[in-house]
Amino acid sequence: MNAPAKPLRGVLSPVLTPFNSDLSPAAPRFIKHCRWLLDQGVGLAIFGTNSEANSLSVQEKRGLLDALLDAGLPAHRMVPGTGTCALPDTIELSRHAVKAGCAGVLMLPPFYYKGVSDEGLFRSYAKVIEAVGDARLRIYLYHIPPVSQVAISLNLIDRLLKAYPGAIAGVKDSSGDWNNTAAMLKQFQPQGFDVFAGTETVLLQTMRGGGAGCITATGNVNPTAILRLYKTWQNPDADAQQQALNDTRAIFQKLPIIPAMKAAIAWKSGDEAWATVRPPLVELTDTQRRQLQTELDADQFEIPNAASLAHP
Amino acid sequence: MNAPAKPLRGVLSPVLTPFNSDLSPAAPRFIKHCRWLLDQGVGLAIFGTNSEANSLSVQEKRGLLDALLDAGLPAHRMVPGTGTCALPDTIELSRHAVKAGCAGVLMLPPFYYKGVSDEGLFRSYAKVIEAVGDARLRIYLYHIPPVSQVAISLNLIDRLLKAYPGAIAGVKDSSGDWNNTAAMLKQFQPQGFDVFAGTETVLLQTMRGGGAGCITATGNVNPTAILRLYKTWQNPDADAQQQALNDTRAIFQKLPIIPAMKAAIAWKSGDEAWATVRPPLVELTDTQRRQLQTELDADQFEIPNAASLAHP
Repeated sequence: MNAPAKPLRGVLSPVLTPFNSDLSPAAPRFIKHCRWLLDQGVGLAIFGTNSEANSLSVQEKRGLLDALLDAGLPAHRMVPGTGTCALPDTIELSRHAVKAGCAGVLMLPPFYYKGVSDEGLFRSYAKVIEAVGDARLRIYLYHIPPVSQVAISLNLIDRLLKAYPGAIAGVKDSSGDWNNTAAMLKQFQPQGFDVFAGTETVLLQTMRGGGAGCITATGNVNPTAILRLYKTWQNPDADAQQQALNDTRAIFQKLPIIPAMKAAIAWKSGDEAWATVRPPLVELTDTQRRQLQTELDADQFEIPNAASLAHP
Repeated sequence: MNAPAKPLRGVLSPVLTPFNSDLSPAAPRFIKHCRWLLDQGVGLAIFGTNSEANSLSVQEKRGLLDALLDAGLPAHRMVPGTGTCALPDTIELSRHAVKAGCAGVLMLPPFYYKGVSDEGLFRSYAKVIEAVGDARLRIYLYHIPPVSQVAISLNLIDRLLKAYPGAIAGVKDSSGDWNNTAAMLKQFQPQGFDVFAGTETVLLQTMRGGGAGCITATGNVNPTAILRLYKTWQNPDADAQQQALNDTRAIFQKLPIIPAMKAAIAWKSGDEAWATVRPPLVELTDTQRRQLQTELDADQFEIPNAASLAHP
């Protein structure tokens, strides 16, 4: 019923999840935002860390994915996050994504227990692959130890690739450790294992190292410039482009980044509801918001066609 | 339909969750183990860290609680863990526990995002309390920063107690930091906020400090001796009892403790299926198991009536 998944390349964004004032997911805003991201050329890594996805129930995630599909958005541009603490939840979400025809899934390791072994993580991924039992399953491993506190080691990737070469498709490296990204690029990218930077601040380095692109939070608010570097990274101005990306990123990153991105969309779209976050996150204070706006103005920051993100 | 919850005291155990070989929860073994714990005088903190509860889906947790109730086990001896990453899951599980007549719920803070503010955690607990909207809800805060990586500060407890004195019932302190337990005992126990040690290794200190008891992993395997100290902590041999408890605990704790406890039950009951754990945990190696058995034999360790834990 859907085109077979094909290898992903380029810029994807962990799509922000808008909420209503009662903290329920705001599906119409979510659809608009996803459509807008696709219009900018950005792929949909829905249900990532910056999507507050682990603050959503399995049912809510299924419902939001179905809402996108019902709205006619193309599954082959979607890479839903499906990794949770609990094997049955990860299996259910992954199965649902594969059946929907998604290009892949971005899979956190189970992250409650700390200090677990590579053997235990291998078994976790293996169980999911075997339970889903579908040749279309393409897993992007999600390495984000600063948040998950559970790392995906090079040895684990090696073992998974040998056991499940068809299912293990790549990685999002959000370690913040360039040496780790470089090691993944060197050891695994030549095998067709696609390495995505976890932030656009190392996009140029990643492309020079043969990587596949980036999956980055600020794709939600600054897609044009990030995509331009992805497309023109061999141009003479690439380093200057990278510096400009870093400057914009720094403005968001010095604040709690999820509330900051939502505040920027609320501001530029005029739709205040966009600022809502789910606990345990907290929206920006007025002072933080003024700081954000002042610095973004100084950076001549714009969200193209921002009004289209407002609802209703 | 159920007796109102009354303040808990004594020794509770985060009940081990037995699995079948296909990794599905083994409800009949779970019922047997819970009944055995009650027979030993130990309360049922089902769905704790040592229950592998965060490796279970919401549906599985609901199903296991219902299985206990259907088997006639008393809800007023149960304190299910209901804290998850996602507000709707925490609300659903807490509502289900309250409706079942459980004595309380043990509630982790949302634990995916790290470095979150007390304000964000306050809002998380507040939202659950308001959404459950039932005066019978009694929350035991679950402070286990070595695993959750998200702490429950004294300031947060103070604020929650002032806002929701009826709902905030106590804490399980698994920080491993006696100074923190002592501070909680001093500041909050006099207000009727019940402080439970998170391990029996500080049970005597906790009782001397006016605490309510302990909620401890090894209650699953060594209940008699732990309960004896709880009941006789004012006796002259209390320090010697504490030392004996510590010696037994150390045997389990030098190994991965959940697989070790399950291996001990498999060994003593003769029911090998008990050794099964869900990924990302891994069962003991043969070498680890021999070490465990040798050291437990030297400790003259026994599980009373262990054969009753075997299934079928």
